[in-house]
Amino acid sequence: MPEVVFEVDQSKSMRDQAVPGHNRWHPDVPVATMVRPGSEFRVECREWTDAQIGNNDSANDVRDVDLSRAHMLSGPIGVEGAEPGDLLVVDILDLGACQPPQEYGDAPGQGWGYTGIFARTNGGGFLTDYFPDSAKAIWDFHGQVATSRHLPGVRYTGITHPGLFGTAPSADLLARWNRREQALIDREPDRVPPLALPPLRESSLGGQATGSLADQIAAEGARTVPARENGGNHDIKNFTRGSRVYYPVHVEGAKLSGGDLHFSQGDGEITFCGAIEMGGYIDFGVDLIKGGMETYGVSTNPIFMPGNVEPRYSEFLTFIGISVDHDTDTNEYLDATLAYKRACLNAVEYLKKFGYTGEQAYLLLGSAPIEGRVSGVVDIPNACCSLYLPTAIFDFDIRPSASGPTAADRGMSAVTS
Amino acid sequence: MPEVVFEVDQSKSMRDQAVPGHNRWHPDVPVATMVRPGSEFRVECREWTDAQIGNNDSANDVRDVDLSRAHMLSGPIGVEGAEPGDLLVVDILDLGACQPPQEYGDAPGQGWGYTGIFARTNGGGFLTDYFPDSAKAIWDFHGQVATSRHLPGVRYTGITHPGLFGTAPSADLLARWNRREQALIDREPDRVPPLALPPLRESSLGGQATGSLADQIAAEGARTVPARENGGNHDIKNFTRGSRVYYPVHVEGAKLSGGDLHFSQGDGEITFCGAIEMGGYIDFGVDLIKGGMETYGVSTNPIFMPGNVEPRYSEFLTFIGISVDHDTDTNEYLDATLAYKRACLNAVEYLKKFGYTGEQAYLLLGSAPIEGRVSGVVDIPNACCSLYLPTAIFDFDIRPSASGPTAADRGMSAVTS
Amino acid sequence: MPEVVFEVDQSKSMRDQAVPGHNRWHPDVPVATMVRPGSEFRVECREWTDAQIGNNDSANDVRDVDLSRAHMLSGPIGVEGAEPGDLLVVDILDLGACQPPQEYGDAPGQGWGYTGIFARTNGGGFLTDYFPDSAKAIWDFHGQVATSRHLPGVRYTGITHPGLFGTAPSADLLARWNRREQALIDREPDRVPPLALPPLRESSLGGQATGSLADQIAAEGARTVPARENGGNHDIKNFTRGSRVYYPVHVEGAKLSGGDLHFSQGDGEITFCGAIEMGGYIDFGVDLIKGGMETYGVSTNPIFMPGNVEPRYSEFLTFIGISVDHDTDTNEYLDATLAYKRACLNAVEYLKKFGYTGEQAYLLLGSAPIEGRVSGVVDIPNACCSLYLPTAIFDFDIRPSASGPTAADRGMSAVTS
Amino acid sequence: MPEVVFEVDQSKSMRDQAVPGHNRWHPDVPVATMVRPGSEFRVECREWTDAQIGNNDSANDVRDVDLSRAHMLSGPIGVEGAEPGDLLVVDILDLGACQPPQEYGDAPGQGWGYTGIFARTNGGGFLTDYFPDSAKAIWDFHGQVATSRHLPGVRYTGITHPGLFGTAPSADLLARWNRREQALIDREPDRVPPLALPPLRESSLGGQATGSLADQIAAEGARTVPARENGGNHDIKNFTRGSRVYYPVHVEGAKLSGGDLHFSQGDGEITFCGAIEMGGYIDFGVDLIKGGMETYGVSTNPIFMPGNVEPRYSEFLTFIGISVDHDTDTNEYLDATLAYKRACLNAVEYLKKFGYTGEQAYLLLGSAPIEGRVSGVVDIPNACCSLYLPTAIFDFDIRPSASGPTAADRGMSAVTS
Repeated sequence: MPEVVFEVDQSKSMRDQAVPGHNRWHPDVPVATMVRPGSEFRVECREWTDAQIGNNDSANDVRDVDLSRAHMLSGPIGVEGAEPGDLLVVDILDLGACQPPQEYGDAPGQGWGYTGIFARTNGGGFLTDYFPDSAKAIWDFHGQVATSRHLPGVRYTGITHPGLFGTAPSADLLARWNRREQALIDREPDRVPPLALPPLRESSLGGQATGSLADQIAAEGARTVPARENGGNHDIKNFTRGSRVYYPVHVEGAKLSGGDLHFSQGDGEITFCGAIEMGGYIDFGVDLIKGGMETYGVSTNPIFMPGNVEPRYSEFLTFIGISVDHDTDTNEYLDATLAYKRACLNAVEYLKKFGYTGEQAYLLLGSAPIEGRVSGVVDIPNACCSLYLPTAIFDFDIRPSASGPTAADRGMSAVTS
Repeated sequence: MPEVVFEVDQSKSMRDQAVPGHNRWHPDVPVATMVRPGSEFRVECREWTDAQIGNNDSANDVRDVDLSRAHMLSGPIGVEGAEPGDLLVVDILDLGACQPPQEYGDAPGQGWGYTGIFARTNGGGFLTDYFPDSAKAIWDFHGQVATSRHLPGVRYTGITHPGLFGTAPSADLLARWNRREQALIDREPDRVPPLALPPLRESSLGGQATGSLADQIAAEGARTVPARENGGNHDIKNFTRGSRVYYPVHVEGAKLSGGDLHFSQGDGEITFCGAIEMGGYIDFGVDLIKGGMETYGVSTNPIFMPGNVEPRYSEFLTFIGISVDHDTDTNEYLDATLAYKRACLNAVEYLKKFGYTGEQAYLLLGSAPIEGRVSGVVDIPNACCSLYLPTAIFDFDIRPSASGPTAADRGMSAVTS
Repeated sequence: MPEVVFEVDQSKSMRDQAVPGHNRWHPDVPVATMVRPGSEFRVECREWTDAQIGNNDSANDVRDVDLSRAHMLSGPIGVEGAEPGDLLVVDILDLGACQPPQEYGDAPGQGWGYTGIFARTNGGGFLTDYFPDSAKAIWDFHGQVATSRHLPGVRYTGITHPGLFGTAPSADLLARWNRREQALIDREPDRVPPLALPPLRESSLGGQATGSLADQIAAEGARTVPARENGGNHDIKNFTRGSRVYYPVHVEGAKLSGGDLHFSQGDGEITFCGAIEMGGYIDFGVDLIKGGMETYGVSTNPIFMPGNVEPRYSEFLTFIGISVDHDTDTNEYLDATLAYKRACLNAVEYLKKFGYTGEQAYLLLGSAPIEGRVSGVVDIPNACCSLYLPTAIFDFDIRPSASGPTAADRGMSAVTS
Repeated sequence: MPEVVFEVDQSKSMRDQAVPGHNRWHPDVPVATMVRPGSEFRVECREWTDAQIGNNDSANDVRDVDLSRAHMLSGPIGVEGAEPGDLLVVDILDLGACQPPQEYGDAPGQGWGYTGIFARTNGGGFLTDYFPDSAKAIWDFHGQVATSRHLPGVRYTGITHPGLFGTAPSADLLARWNRREQALIDREPDRVPPLALPPLRESSLGGQATGSLADQIAAEGARTVPARENGGNHDIKNFTRGSRVYYPVHVEGAKLSGGDLHFSQGDGEITFCGAIEMGGYIDFGVDLIKGGMETYGVSTNPIFMPGNVEPRYSEFLTFIGISVDHDTDTNEYLDATLAYKRACLNAVEYLKKFGYTGEQAYLLLGSAPIEGRVSGVVDIPNACCSLYLPTAIFDFDIRPSASGPTAADRGMSAVTS
């Protein structure tokens, strides 16, 4: 086990840690600690909402969550010798839920995690037009396997990964982000959910910054929700153990930060908080490819190589969607987002025939190791996406047959009161 | 080897076969042959353009291709007892390039295949704004492996599959298609490439229909380009050997038709004709789940279970894209199509550093067994897609390293004169 | 499809082909055809017994088979420039059952194949002490999948491969084989089944050799049953499509010969004729590594790299055996053969609880894609072997559970009258 | 993380723990703790020699190891309600090296592990005739990956597993073991290494037993080296995370014990101590199938289902061995042990061409995730085994090519002084 360079006490807010983390992207968040290229180290993380969600049977906490506090990130970790234009090579050596002596407790990651459907009026989600209310599933961990009292009949091995890691943006890059995202917001400023999130002073945390620097970070700092040129909230389920990521470096020292650990997630993380969310630890190795951005033509996003220990499934039931809104019989042009949405809805309808509620099906598709593929994007006018559901995660036969589905009472998810 | 129920002479146009196929979707295309549930049979196919493309070093044929003739489909195969509301269970037992005595010849599939970049003014493609001109790569088959004189350094096992199979639409369903697609065209009627393709009398082929029925099919028949509620041109690379597909049945007898065989294809088939295109054969088994559409909640698209013999790769280099047009620094809202486009462009830039031309890189990404995943679609405003390139398909080391890429003269694709 | 350089008419014995093959290893079997390094070509093959077994429901033909005729090999194929000390690089591009116009017929491989338990008094097998009588299962081919009327409830994708390919021995090497195998026979000359098989004039076939050369081959030629320094009857199930084998070259021109195609086989091929036996075709590519035996330290057996399209299974039920004969409670010292035998017997007992006869279970374990592993060979005195049975090949749940096995009438294999 | 029911202080011998474990199999070793069916719990383990081996560059400690102390097992864990004839269902939820606060230290498993070649005169090993002297490699852990300063150029993901777990034998079963193993010893009583190991009073540890019970255990208790009807030292590398094992129950309460954790191991564990040996923890879930031995025909060895997170490799270089001693040109009859030995020796010779010493190659083959398969065991007289070496564990190209191997100075293993 490598040295812990960023410690988290899970009984306290990120704000109250000895060395607090941050929840905005800004070049001037002070470095929490420095490491050398070639070194290995451990970073401890809070669950992304700073543990606002509880291990209970009500989704009220999800409905009422304060999103201005998110994501709570650990870092920044400075890397000696890193300069703009380099590639920061980051090996994900291991990661997991909270370890002794913090293995049990009230914070997500302390032996349990959750998946949430966020309310349309507070966060929303991929299918928010169909599922506007909050719901929740609590998951228990059994080694690499998760089960949920809110989703009986399902048991699977998680592809554990960090939802969000990245380097700090330069001042120029940050300015570009703020400019282009504001332009998007301006297209439809009153939309619910909004098109994007501008900087927000409320609840801003700038690490060890105080005074005017803290104010500046609060005023300018980019929200952590989307993925951008520094990495960020990719929510790519395949950033798992053994992965190697090549991050663009935009500032001296690279300033690696992250968190939002997921015990498991399906492609798309479709409920918005679709992963099994948790705090925990992540072990990194770092190195540099000097000048690597130019050498390898990496001008925008990181590149990476996934690890080789993802759970092995060999049988899948696959749902297809195309870029037609079948509810209104409206065709869109090569819209892969819509196509994937329809594939998800098709899967939900199918699962309901086996006794799950729509919310349960939606929570399952967000958190289980499903694959979502861009299958066809050139056959005008219909993009085609496909969603691969491993059949082995169910303890009953989920395949179609002449004898019909085995319906059963499969309970329900946590809902709001 | 099962009985051949639809024969093709590869030296002749589909139009001139003893039993011709069809190139429009229409409920009244006459059945070519009937089969029983439980039976297994072989269908022979023409390459999708009816063999307009040649095994040569010029892309002029791609530039000048007559798309009104496409796709040339084999069928319809009627299934005894199939009624609207059933699910037609279709096992893909085997498929491949043309067999003896037609294994050599001038038609794609006779020992060779091709991948094409279509011209912006004649078909276009996913990256047509970046690659407006035609280009082409010819592939030679070595068992399940393909190599190309236009793409040296690459050798891979194809995930062979049919690009296009489906059942006939009902008259009502056809009318809906025509209505909603025309509505889309009407948004921007003069666009190049167009938003969608309306029915077109020119080059229409209605199987064995003649006279007024042939006229009606030509007038009303839906173009075969997109995937729709009957299946159709999914271009899902995972419809491979051993797959089982459950097609909705919309008309008596189901009327299964198809073609557009691909020796290999990457997710997205990004060059439009991005697969390795070929004629050949496909062996099917069919069965019925009576009333299965209602039983399993299948109201729009087919569902399927992929086969278990896809080539096994364990190491991937992954490119990420987000829904930002970095050329203009414009943000779009959760646009997975744009995100995948950027992932593709990032991969192209990377491959150019190893000595490939942009066209070669584009042709490679269309045809090799790459995976394109919808990684995140909820982190406003940026959808995130990822593209997994298997490293083992290259005969040199494609991974990033401190020593930089091994550039070499890697020739060029076929281009236009 | 590459050029056919060795043709077989499946209606005739190998002895009566235009260019006959051979059934003994000898340096002087005349070359049937020459190929160049870098070329690709097709070789057609007879089933290993020269089609003595029929598609029927009696095992009498297995009981009475004339083993002096086996194995009927196609070849030798001479490779230009190959010299002793080289490595002959052989790519297995493709292989399969008989193709048009020979796809249907009475010879194994013409749409069907068989697995046999050989009688103790005529061939024997791994568990011959437990199954001394002949039995048989006939398999039907559905693309890459096999089913058997003698083994209901089972359906699987074959790992198709050649049981036997190799280069010709030099005169010196042949003499060593004959010497050491006779020494083994001399330990227990009257054993049934015998310890090894000496040269046998009866039924010898020396390709195009006639007169005194044919006599010499008959007198000296090594039987084809075992694997030896030239490759030979490896019965390694993983020599499948896409494999590359590096054979030692012992004579000028290498003289590659082979046959004994298997639609599928489990590790060990435990019934002796445990694979699904068939005639058919195999497509090769060949090349040379000059002086490769010394360069790579290959002094005895070939090395190879398996292909990447073996069927993908992710769940296995595993049986363990150790080197104890539990019937007599006798311990042997690190005897992996005994350990694997016990693992097989344990699997047979398990499968009987689900309604199979012992013969059916034995036939299944020989032919299905099971893995047999040498798990531990150092923990004195007990070697430990393990047998991995993919659960997905059964159409019922084969896993242990508190509710017990689903017994059913599962018919029986073909037996003797 | 489940409750720890068996604790180990890694700074002390197993003998000096608050609740000591045991190193002999005997029905009367007192239960250390009781658990209920359905429960999950953690067991901490010492490395198998009780930490006699150090993290240094000399193999003297391996040469001089006291084997009478081995294996140091944690347990027995009693399971409520378990009775003879039941199957004890054991889920391996997780396992790994020592955790905080014991993650660093001098005992194997505290951040490091080792692989040893044992001296012919003290333990021996599979290739002891070729490698009679001791040697050692020290491994460092990086998450799920191991590297060794004694084996540069190699880096791989471990298939972490327990070498040894099992239930207690009944008195009758123990008596049978002692009888049959003594009979084996009596065949060649003076052999070095011996054929088997009889009970040995020296260094016997019987858990919490004292006085006459401890004496009886010392006098009668079976050595823990081999696998037997109770499970035991299987050294099956695939007992990894997510596995479910079904152990026969021979005594009331089942009395589950175990240890000998391996960070990684190749099939066969060929150096005798061929795994990467370590102490650490293992998390179990347990349940019962009442009367399961009879129900499922389990009369001798456990059965199991391996987990689905083994590292995924797709390219292998395979070595073949047959049951011929090529050094003396002696043929043995279907001897899979000899065949696997020859496959190992062939692999050693190959690896030496790349610059490794023989000892390094031997240590590598014992510890890396190689597969050893019983390929053919019926082709008289030659059994055929094959050894699959994943090419991706090397940081250079290990495949054969016309340009020859990349030799380099690859250092050496730790040796004796």
